[in-house]
Amino acid sequence: RVNPDIASERQTASFCVETLTAVLDGGVERTRSRRAVVEAIESDPVFSRENQYFQSQNERYEAAVRKAVHLQKKMREMGWSEDGPEYKYIYRALAGDVAFLLHRIFVRSISMLGSDKQVAKWIPLATQYQLIGSYGQTELGHGTYLQGLETTAVFDVTTQEFILNTPKISAMKWWPGDMGRSATHTVAFAQLYIHGQCYGVHPFIVQIRSLRDHSLCPGVTAGDIGPKMSFEHTDNGYLLLQNVRVPRENMLSKFCEVQPDGTYVRLGSQQINYFTMTAVRISLISDEVIIPLMKACTIAVRYSVVRRQSKLKPGEEEAKILDYQTQQEKLLPQLAAAYAFHFISDYLQELFDKSYTEIQRKNFNTLPELHAFSSGFKALVTQYCTSAVEICLRACGGHGYSLLSGLPSLYTKILASCIYEGENTILLLQTARFLTKCFSAAHAGQPVPPSVMYLAAGKPGTCPARNKLDFLRPDIYTEAYQHTAVRLISSTAAKLQDLIQSGVQEHDAWNQCTVQLAQAAKAHCHYITVKNFAETVEKLETKAGIQKIMKHLCDLFALHGIFSNSGVFLHDGYISGAQMDMVTASYLDLLAIVRKDAVPLVDAFDFTDKSLNSALGSYDGQVYQRLYEWAQKSPTNTQMSPAYERYLKPLLHNSLSKL
Amino acid sequence: RVNPDIASERQTASFCVETLTAVLDGGVERTRSRRAVVEAIESDPVFSRENQYFQSQNERYEAAVRKAVHLQKKMREMGWSEDGPEYKYIYRALAGDVAFLLHRIFVRSISMLGSDKQVAKWIPLATQYQLIGSYGQTELGHGTYLQGLETTAVFDVTTQEFILNTPKISAMKWWPGDMGRSATHTVAFAQLYIHGQCYGVHPFIVQIRSLRDHSLCPGVTAGDIGPKMSFEHTDNGYLLLQNVRVPRENMLSKFCEVQPDGTYVRLGSQQINYFTMTAVRISLISDEVIIPLMKACTIAVRYSVVRRQSKLKPGEEEAKILDYQTQQEKLLPQLAAAYAFHFISDYLQELFDKSYTEIQRKNFNTLPELHAFSSGFKALVTQYCTSAVEICLRACGGHGYSLLSGLPSLYTKILASCIYEGENTILLLQTARFLTKCFSAAHAGQPVPPSVMYLAAGKPGTCPARNKLDFLRPDIYTEAYQHTAVRLISSTAAKLQDLIQSGVQEHDAWNQCTVQLAQAAKAHCHYITVKNFAETVEKLETKAGIQKIMKHLCDLFALHGIFSNSGVFLHDGYISGAQMDMVTASYLDLLAIVRKDAVPLVDAFDFTDKSLNSALGSYDGQVYQRLYEWAQKSPTNTQMSPAYERYLKPLLHNSLSKL
Repeated sequence: RVNPDIASERQTASFCVETLTAVLDGGVERTRSRRAVVEAIESDPVFSRENQYFQSQNERYEAAVRKAVHLQKKMREMGWSEDGPEYKYIYRALAGDVAFLLHRIFVRSISMLGSDKQVAKWIPLATQYQLIGSYGQTELGHGTYLQGLETTAVFDVTTQEFILNTPKISAMKWWPGDMGRSATHTVAFAQLYIHGQCYGVHPFIVQIRSLRDHSLCPGVTAGDIGPKMSFEHTDNGYLLLQNVRVPRENMLSKFCEVQPDGTYVRLGSQQINYFTMTAVRISLISDEVIIPLMKACTIAVRYSVVRRQSKLKPGEEEAKILDYQTQQEKLLPQLAAAYAFHFISDYLQELFDKSYTEIQRKNFNTLPELHAFSSGFKALVTQYCTSAVEICLRACGGHGYSLLSGLPSLYTKILASCIYEGENTILLLQTARFLTKCFSAAHAGQPVPPSVMYLAAGKPGTCPARNKLDFLRPDIYTEAYQHTAVRLISSTAAKLQDLIQSGVQEHDAWNQCTVQLAQAAKAHCHYITVKNFAETVEKLETKAGIQKIMKHLCDLFALHGIFSNSGVFLHDGYISGAQMDMVTASYLDLLAIVRKDAVPLVDAFDFTDKSLNSALGSYDGQVYQRLYEWAQKSPTNTQMSPAYERYLKPLLHNSLSKL
Repeated sequence: RVNPDIASERQTASFCVETLTAVLDGGVERTRSRRAVVEAIESDPVFSRENQYFQSQNERYEAAVRKAVHLQKKMREMGWSEDGPEYKYIYRALAGDVAFLLHRIFVRSISMLGSDKQVAKWIPLATQYQLIGSYGQTELGHGTYLQGLETTAVFDVTTQEFILNTPKISAMKWWPGDMGRSATHTVAFAQLYIHGQCYGVHPFIVQIRSLRDHSLCPGVTAGDIGPKMSFEHTDNGYLLLQNVRVPRENMLSKFCEVQPDGTYVRLGSQQINYFTMTAVRISLISDEVIIPLMKACTIAVRYSVVRRQSKLKPGEEEAKILDYQTQQEKLLPQLAAAYAFHFISDYLQELFDKSYTEIQRKNFNTLPELHAFSSGFKALVTQYCTSAVEICLRACGGHGYSLLSGLPSLYTKILASCIYEGENTILLLQTARFLTKCFSAAHAGQPVPPSVMYLAAGKPGTCPARNKLDFLRPDIYTEAYQHTAVRLISSTAAKLQDLIQSGVQEHDAWNQCTVQLAQAAKAHCHYITVKNFAETVEKLETKAGIQKIMKHLCDLFALHGIFSNSGVFLHDGYISGAQMDMVTASYLDLLAIVRKDAVPLVDAFDFTDKSLNSALGSYDGQVYQRLYEWAQKSPTNTQMSPAYERYLKPLLHNSLSKL
């Protein structure tokens, strides 16, 4: 039985939901195969997430291992491939709630960095879970700055072994997933020393637990790092090595090798490592960031047409909260952002694929651009979407704060994406470095990648819009974004230059510009996102109302950005105060327009109720009934607390004669 | 043993930390008594929070009840008073992690709304925990909009009873603390019906659990609403009433009464209810919002001088992360905000005390201003500080994400403050309504409260600053904030007027202005915060370096606000683009200045290590050692998981012969 308040929202959709779903999936065929995978996963009780919100860290871990082991069997049975699109669908269906994700990185790092012999030895065992690997990079004292890692691997020429050590507490490996309780092996990154000379960080395969009884190997101290904001299912671990010896063959040696006599030989280019990181950042944008935002929007929008609160007009019944302008202004820009970033994720994937083709032809020219883009977008998208999910959560009031809404776990998980795979500020500064270089090059008449050619074109001027409708023209707002990005990059580059010319040392000067450099990098990525959204809309089919509604969302995304960062557009007068009032007027008008299609727009994301796992967000809108049913299953209701007998009973009995 | 990296920060303090602590406490005497209370609480093992991060919701609840019962005894022993400053200190020491906080509201509501006879009957029992009360207001379907509550209380003249019912699922009481498992009684708010006529929402004392065995009373269904983002220690509950009868005497009847024949009599003014809500909002600002922000700043700043990452200059050792401009720009404005809001909290308390004196003289004139201010500041401060705590958390990278850092629990708890005691957007709109009224009144030459007289003074003009140093003049930046607040209020009032004059119905017109009205209300509160900070600095003693460092923080808070909301200052050209560059320059300069005193500035908040409960934030800066020690106590390390035996062993044994 569907709540009539939500049912009525679907009857007035201005477009065909199925068609939009197919657009998002990249074709009807893909929608079909995604649904088949999701159906197969969700109908299998081993994968149930039903009691997830009530489970302890230990229970979540056990369930995640159970699911991982079962999944391997399931994949074989179903003929699903590890590298095909199915894995993406599986991951979506499981909401990432499965063990051995770092084991996958372990496998990938051996495949990428290992010699053919190493690949032949380790990969078959690993893919069948005959060993469980982890990826031992981050240390207690070192994250993003890899050169600073302190673990050491000293080559002992007499025994042909590397001796691994954790020389001090800050060198302890800390955070690697699957390491805390599961892993038997790890790829440990350590500073390589040969005959007293340091050769920098290298990867070594190290066994840490017995294959027979899972006890820790000699010299190894390892365990779980304890509770985190989310990722209860993952055994993020610590690892301390004391004179742990591994054979010479255990250094991953596709790109460099230590020969028996201690000679260090570099083989080929290591630039490809760069590429792996890039691949991970691009895939996390879609899997770990955009999908959670889409879920949060689905939950919050559906709830906002079921929840009624206060009256819009005296005498009428209470209004759906989505009919309030303030609620629209909270949620609808986030919905537009989910679409905007979905399309930018496609754009990045395309950039990546092109680059990959080039690299296979040994052309590494595209790497700097790809690295800069994947870094900047990783930072922009994770930060934007984390805030967006938080806005969705807050917009659901008290019930959003209940774990049963599904929103807290989405938030606490997406928040981590701002931190892992490169700290966002550092990533933005890498993008900024690329942009300032390109800016100088462009102005010196040197060639730059097409995506940043706009940096050469920047010139003073003002926005030509004359009324609020002009701000619904993609050329007008895209140009405004472009102008602003150029201005921020050029003015910061100029400041940097001035500081250096006034005698400030280059590193100090850079540090003194970093707040503005990060801002410039964000402006660049924001511009590309708007431009790409507008171009995507251009190319969409005009039938079934899709292009029209996507145009509204694109306008909304763009104008929301101008409205909420108005200072950078007003700063040099490119947009005047009067024009900003037009932006505001168009922006607020758009809210009322998009509001009408809000429910169909989240329906198009096509999440099953099981995958949302939310008492507020189910398709049928039976919010209150579901909250009540789910709450009753909570251990706070099913387990007696000793508090009454111990503490309350003696006190309460005193009043028996009095009441 | 104090980490030398943090010790060195304390040697160069530009001011006396003890003196600043006394300023924050309101005098040396208060610091002394606060410390005595904290010491007494922390030395008592019953109040330990040591294993908190590892406990389940059930364990947290039990501990909270144990603490509450023990606290009552302790308070008697120590001679601490419920209403004195001691309770504030106790609450700070316990970090709010104690049961029966809603029982306190139950007591307060009977004291405020009950007749003398009701007070005499219920209060003695309640204060001795011979009954446990809850406060049954919020329903599944209704929060902030009280008039919409659906629970009914029908007067039965034949039995002289009220019959209470939950007519539908959305009418179920939902969220009341202490109700889920503890409470024997509640004050239930219900629509009063007499002879078929509805008299609106009234409070009724209802027994829900037996005093003998704690079983639910006939007609009562109640339980716990399950897991939430935080507040694991609180048994937020639900309550469903089916023909539950309470005697006529159980309707709280200080302000209105139902006589035996069903005659409804109103006694005196109910405006005072208004006042209770105001009191709660003002006290939550300091206890639930500013203290958590101060803690988060303490943790993040201390960690940021211990954590080293990358090199600022080649060849040097890795730099403390607080030496990076971007890290300063994350944390130091939050630190400045903690001070700014501490002083605004004092300001609100003073406003409240003055108002209270007037009310006791039956003068209710100050109520609208007080209501508008407490609403607006509740919204501004909770929202600002929630973001600030999140920034602190993210600024600590991966380790901030560990529960052991203390930051996740600070964040998840402060987030709730945006939702409870009035939804923030609704509160801002109440402030906006007051401001637009005052604006019209001021322009019609009618009297308005002194705090909003500035609304009459608004006139076009431009900022007189000529160089970046001018922006360190409080008159310059305070004037800019004032100008902006007036502009936002007047332009939105004008838009509202225009809409109405163009024929839009008043309620629709209001709704179409709410995004801007909320913005205007925030601008007003922001202005008052800056003005109050500047005035506080004026009055501070000039010795011991206090005034100087507080001036820096005030400047930083003010310029951060202009820098990060630059659009509203640039919009009408009050501040030009060139002046905004001066603001930015002064703002970035200030970061480097305040950075030098960052550690002493958080030390002055005077939190004990136990109260911070953070592996990252302890006074001695032994971050890594503590993380490692605490992690080892996690149940993920102390309890065996069945996952190995069940799922992994059979797989791993396959590789025994191969490796």
